[in-house]
Amino acid sequence: MKKVCVVVGSRANYSSIKSVMRAAKAHPGIQLQVVAAASALLDRYGSVVKLIEKDGFEIDARVHMLVEGETPHTMAKSTGLGLMELPTIFDYLTPDVVLTVGDRFETVATAVAAAFMNIPLAHTMGGEVSGTIDESIRHAITKFAHIHFPSSKGAAERIIKLGEDPESVHVVGCPRMDLVAEILRRANDGLDNGELKRGVGDQIDFDKPFVMLSQHAVTTEFGQGIEQITASLQALRRIGLPVMVFWPNADAGSEDIARGIRIWRESGNADGMHFTKNLPTETYIRLMARTACLVGNSSSGIRDGAFIGTPVVNVGSRQSGRERGANVIDVSYDADAITAAVERQIGHGRYDMDPIYGDGTAGEAITRTLAETDEIVVQKRIAY
Amino acid sequence: MKKVCVVVGSRANYSSIKSVMRAAKAHPGIQLQVVAAASALLDRYGSVVKLIEKDGFEIDARVHMLVEGETPHTMAKSTGLGLMELPTIFDYLTPDVVLTVGDRFETVATAVAAAFMNIPLAHTMGGEVSGTIDESIRHAITKFAHIHFPSSKGAAERIIKLGEDPESVHVVGCPRMDLVAEILRRANDGLDNGELKRGVGDQIDFDKPFVMLSQHAVTTEFGQGIEQITASLQALRRIGLPVMVFWPNADAGSEDIARGIRIWRESGNADGMHFTKNLPTETYIRLMARTACLVGNSSSGIRDGAFIGTPVVNVGSRQSGRERGANVIDVSYDADAITAAVERQIGHGRYDMDPIYGDGTAGEAITRTLAETDEIVVQKRIAY
Amino acid sequence: MKKVCVVVGSRANYSSIKSVMRAAKAHPGIQLQVVAAASALLDRYGSVVKLIEKDGFEIDARVHMLVEGETPHTMAKSTGLGLMELPTIFDYLTPDVVLTVGDRFETVATAVAAAFMNIPLAHTMGGEVSGTIDESIRHAITKFAHIHFPSSKGAAERIIKLGEDPESVHVVGCPRMDLVAEILRRANDGLDNGELKRGVGDQIDFDKPFVMLSQHAVTTEFGQGIEQITASLQALRRIGLPVMVFWPNADAGSEDIARGIRIWRESGNADGMHFTKNLPTETYIRLMARTACLVGNSSSGIRDGAFIGTPVVNVGSRQSGRERGANVIDVSYDADAITAAVERQIGHGRYDMDPIYGDGTAGEAITRTLAETDEIVVQKRIAY
Amino acid sequence: MKKVCVVVGSRANYSSIKSVMRAAKAHPGIQLQVVAAASALLDRYGSVVKLIEKDGFEIDARVHMLVEGETPHTMAKSTGLGLMELPTIFDYLTPDVVLTVGDRFETVATAVAAAFMNIPLAHTMGGEVSGTIDESIRHAITKFAHIHFPSSKGAAERIIKLGEDPESVHVVGCPRMDLVAEILRRANDGLDNGELKRGVGDQIDFDKPFVMLSQHAVTTEFGQGIEQITASLQALRRIGLPVMVFWPNADAGSEDIARGIRIWRESGNADGMHFTKNLPTETYIRLMARTACLVGNSSSGIRDGAFIGTPVVNVGSRQSGRERGANVIDVSYDADAITAAVERQIGHGRYDMDPIYGDGTAGEAITRTLAETDEIVVQKRIAY
Repeated sequence: MKKVCVVVGSRANYSSIKSVMRAAKAHPGIQLQVVAAASALLDRYGSVVKLIEKDGFEIDARVHMLVEGETPHTMAKSTGLGLMELPTIFDYLTPDVVLTVGDRFETVATAVAAAFMNIPLAHTMGGEVSGTIDESIRHAITKFAHIHFPSSKGAAERIIKLGEDPESVHVVGCPRMDLVAEILRRANDGLDNGELKRGVGDQIDFDKPFVMLSQHAVTTEFGQGIEQITASLQALRRIGLPVMVFWPNADAGSEDIARGIRIWRESGNADGMHFTKNLPTETYIRLMARTACLVGNSSSGIRDGAFIGTPVVNVGSRQSGRERGANVIDVSYDADAITAAVERQIGHGRYDMDPIYGDGTAGEAITRTLAETDEIVVQKRIAY
Repeated sequence: MKKVCVVVGSRANYSSIKSVMRAAKAHPGIQLQVVAAASALLDRYGSVVKLIEKDGFEIDARVHMLVEGETPHTMAKSTGLGLMELPTIFDYLTPDVVLTVGDRFETVATAVAAAFMNIPLAHTMGGEVSGTIDESIRHAITKFAHIHFPSSKGAAERIIKLGEDPESVHVVGCPRMDLVAEILRRANDGLDNGELKRGVGDQIDFDKPFVMLSQHAVTTEFGQGIEQITASLQALRRIGLPVMVFWPNADAGSEDIARGIRIWRESGNADGMHFTKNLPTETYIRLMARTACLVGNSSSGIRDGAFIGTPVVNVGSRQSGRERGANVIDVSYDADAITAAVERQIGHGRYDMDPIYGDGTAGEAITRTLAETDEIVVQKRIAY
Repeated sequence: MKKVCVVVGSRANYSSIKSVMRAAKAHPGIQLQVVAAASALLDRYGSVVKLIEKDGFEIDARVHMLVEGETPHTMAKSTGLGLMELPTIFDYLTPDVVLTVGDRFETVATAVAAAFMNIPLAHTMGGEVSGTIDESIRHAITKFAHIHFPSSKGAAERIIKLGEDPESVHVVGCPRMDLVAEILRRANDGLDNGELKRGVGDQIDFDKPFVMLSQHAVTTEFGQGIEQITASLQALRRIGLPVMVFWPNADAGSEDIARGIRIWRESGNADGMHFTKNLPTETYIRLMARTACLVGNSSSGIRDGAFIGTPVVNVGSRQSGRERGANVIDVSYDADAITAAVERQIGHGRYDMDPIYGDGTAGEAITRTLAETDEIVVQKRIAY
Repeated sequence: MKKVCVVVGSRANYSSIKSVMRAAKAHPGIQLQVVAAASALLDRYGSVVKLIEKDGFEIDARVHMLVEGETPHTMAKSTGLGLMELPTIFDYLTPDVVLTVGDRFETVATAVAAAFMNIPLAHTMGGEVSGTIDESIRHAITKFAHIHFPSSKGAAERIIKLGEDPESVHVVGCPRMDLVAEILRRANDGLDNGELKRGVGDQIDFDKPFVMLSQHAVTTEFGQGIEQITASLQALRRIGLPVMVFWPNADAGSEDIARGIRIWRESGNADGMHFTKNLPTETYIRLMARTACLVGNSSSGIRDGAFIGTPVVNVGSRQSGRERGANVIDVSYDADAITAAVERQIGHGRYDMDPIYGDGTAGEAITRTLAETDEIVVQKRIAY
């Protein structure tokens, strides 16, 4: 039995790895270990750990590692805290492989702990290009990782250019597309209105046209969050459709985005807007399949959006460099530009499905590869 | 005044950055900040911090971050501890640039803290190739760094292949060669015999032929240290010349190397051998200019040895992949092979000077570049 | 110059030590050092650090040490984080005395770090009796402290009974009373309505009768917060006067209290209620001088209330054991009991001033004692 | 099944709690949990964790928490590290009671973590009086603990004076006496000479008269260790009997003691002296039953010595205040005074057994009490 340990540090992490966890749990040759960490443990981020348990997974360890503050300072400190504790946990769980997801700051703790401890490290979603510190994190983790599971061909090529052994690179698609595909297959299921009514602000009738706004902090533009979110809110007020507004993820700068939203609300400009924290992935994907346009800088617009065909207006630098389909229009933090782009997308309507980020089979593919890989040489060596 | 903060975490770190510190301190446009950390603070590694102060530098902060154990586990944990504290210190010192050295584990804490906090990160000795976890660390730090100061052309090319902006890569040579060059220029100065008599074991007459043994732990071969050092000791006993044996650096596995040496001594095999902890760089370099052969896996054999022309027998995988001059013979952990190679080197004698790792001007070049670089874009972007 | 280092970890900490800081700063024989830590650094607790700077103090170091979660688990972890960092800071600042305030969890980090490092530790507000883990923390810190500044005679007697040297115990009153006295002396200054209008909910006319509710988590009754706060809210709805409701302090369990408040609001029961985070001490004290009754379990009701004469209904166990004046009626977590007690207090009106917690001269007294104490023997010895 | 979690942080810890662990493991109503931490995990302190496993106990978690340096600074930092990790482990193990031993610095981490997390805390060896920071630590832990197991009646009285509930105080004797009693009962077993021959220096014939020297750092006299140990070594050279010298425990200042010993050896004064790290408790106790005199400041001289009747010369302040039997002569750090006292003890020979620290039944008594205590009220309250 090969012990595969997944460290889940956030809601986004979980939806990006859940289909792998499901496949690994079902595989006879693999023993799945789950470490829940960082914001995945916290009520105020929607208690992802409870969701994981509800989905039938057992939690092997819980690591509280978020230092309060949501600044670049505390982001570094939180990573340090995780890096101090994970060795104790890896020593206890003795995994054969550690699987880390994507490019969030807590991922660095997982990657460094495993690599330093000579535990083979598998990494999903490497090789992509984006803005923020995630861009550096992602490629640094690639340099620590022993097995790579990029989401797209372009990403795989980039990993190989980074000097990784081509035999260690497996293009499998993004595991989150597995969930998206599954949800869309059950298209007849209605929306869970209970979930949608939570949060504050006006209620929205999701059978009529509506817009979504999901805009997160750009860590490398720390301090500019209030202006950034305000431009988007202004644009959407002009559009006039109801808006489902999502609170930002926990990141350096997210407090600014949140403050921008609060100021907006308290200034009495929030007619027709509903504010929500975290929706179940299922509900979120269904909304993406219905919305007239998704505005902001969430990677879901570019990744899930390609698969679903959601019209997306991507604002600012957070996703710059990421491969994208025809469904995305890029604009700067400018209310006029955002308004124009949203109008164009509303006019266009839903796009065709584009499988650049996977076709819905990543979880199985990753699991099979992990089960079949016999000997992983821990000593890495750059290819050039 | 541009504030340049250097984090010095070990004796090796210090000798690899001292000439930069000296040049930076003297430069009118730069305010040097020095953080002493990890083994640089500890008596049992020769109290490097006192040496730094004796050399005329002021210490701005001290970070005790070594968790006892010297295993891969505690190496990760120590890095986490550093990563938790450095943000407090960087917030206090508000450096304009953080300068990190090489590829030791504590360097990861410096690099991640600075990069996460949007402080431009400069990195020396990137782009090289070696064994152990250093290989992964070095390239990962490159992916976090904004300015690169590789030691050799080959290293610079590798950094660019890693997707870094060629304009951010400055081939300056290794700053340690600056010290080596300076010491060799003062060739008439004698050896400091006080220093050399410290330690335990038989005394050596350094005016007659002698051999040096400096062999460190290979973190990715954790658990094999006793056998590895024993093969070298056996070979040198056969050679019969006096041997200056150096205790290993603090690393995962160094306890095994040390135990191997202790067992050797207690078994009564140490005739003609002297055991020493840490020599001043000056004394060490002078020994390298006199020794009949340096045996082991210290990078100094390959780097300083190229400049000095020291005959070197490099044992095992720790330095594999590193560019080397004609002065190095590579062998495996095998007493016979080591014996044969040492005999060949003793027969050959000193080699010609080879400037692959620099010509002794790196400190000035790095300082000038740091002083002249105006705007550093914190947001990185892979080149492909 | 004697270096006196104060570690301020929260808003409550600051108001309990500010008058000492002011006197120390003005004293020619003392150099004041200020470390801002924990919730004192955070926006969401009202950025106390900015207030400290606005009051003219310089911050010597900032220690982010709050691990997110607000559970007993993270309270312990946060203390550990503080204890890991404070040695670095104390080594840097080399204080002659460390001054720690009261009995919050972060205080343990300050006390242990100073005592372990052989730095004389001064402690205010020891010897009192209360509920929650604070009860254990307070007496444990007394056992680490070298100079004691209790607020009341009863507290001083208790410290001596704990085996402390009577010569090290100085009854000076609570420094917070210094602020209270000063604010009441400027009684003609009006309320700052800008501050009071912030927050959410209905606006209150403070020239007419109103009630205040300030109820915090009881860490040793973790998990019961929602019921506890709900009983108080129900009682106050029956009373019918406008209510100024304060969000709870950061403590294990505060999330439950906050959730109880949010549920109450979202259930539409919050007519006439205003919800506020943190008022400046000045404004808070003025409200206490006007309110018809203060309900909850804040120590301010018992301490400041005694000096001001505020009618107080103290709910539950959090303050049990604390010396109190005639102005306090104690009740359990029971809506009926709370209602009856509030009605009695409204009928009674303001009480006479009672100096059990000090007469407004503590800051000067503590400063004088610290300046005059020559030699502090670091080695403690229990008196029996 | 009541889950009782013991945190073992050092060799001394283990021998002070082993008989409780044995009894708890055998008790049908108790599930024993063992956390190995701090120096108990380290090779250079004799790998106590392996000993624990060899004795048949399973290790539930391992916490590397020693920050290198052995200064007051790193002692505080190490405690912080432990306090950061233990919450994760206690959350995982969900103990019903945490049992902490004595008064070493790592014990503070255990006590604070358990108390903050509302886990009932049992404490052995409270209420005693000694020098160093242990004196403060011990009484502070008493103020956090819910069940007290003092070793002597005097200690029990002191705990009650500290304001603890008399019903929570159980005089059981020191569990280490259980081991001592057992070893003495098997008096016919010979010494394990293999163990005794390890270490360095001259070999000793233990069938002839010999002296033991076990002297540790006094944390509150940090910086004076070299002089302190040198006085003792000088005295013993004058006595002329063979000396078994023990390296010091890991504590702030132990590096100084060790250096003093190394200087002594390297100065060629070590004729007839043997230097050893850690003996198994069994071997150590047998030596104490044979030695002409035990010199130094180990608590074993006073505690075990009372039971065994060992002639002891106790040097300096480390044990001052501790109850002692007739077998102890106290002297200052003065070579003449030490010489005279040792001569007197050699003249006297072995003393009668004195049960002040227990009669050999503590392990059973503590286990029974823990098993039978039904409800522990987590909220403490000082008795006066």
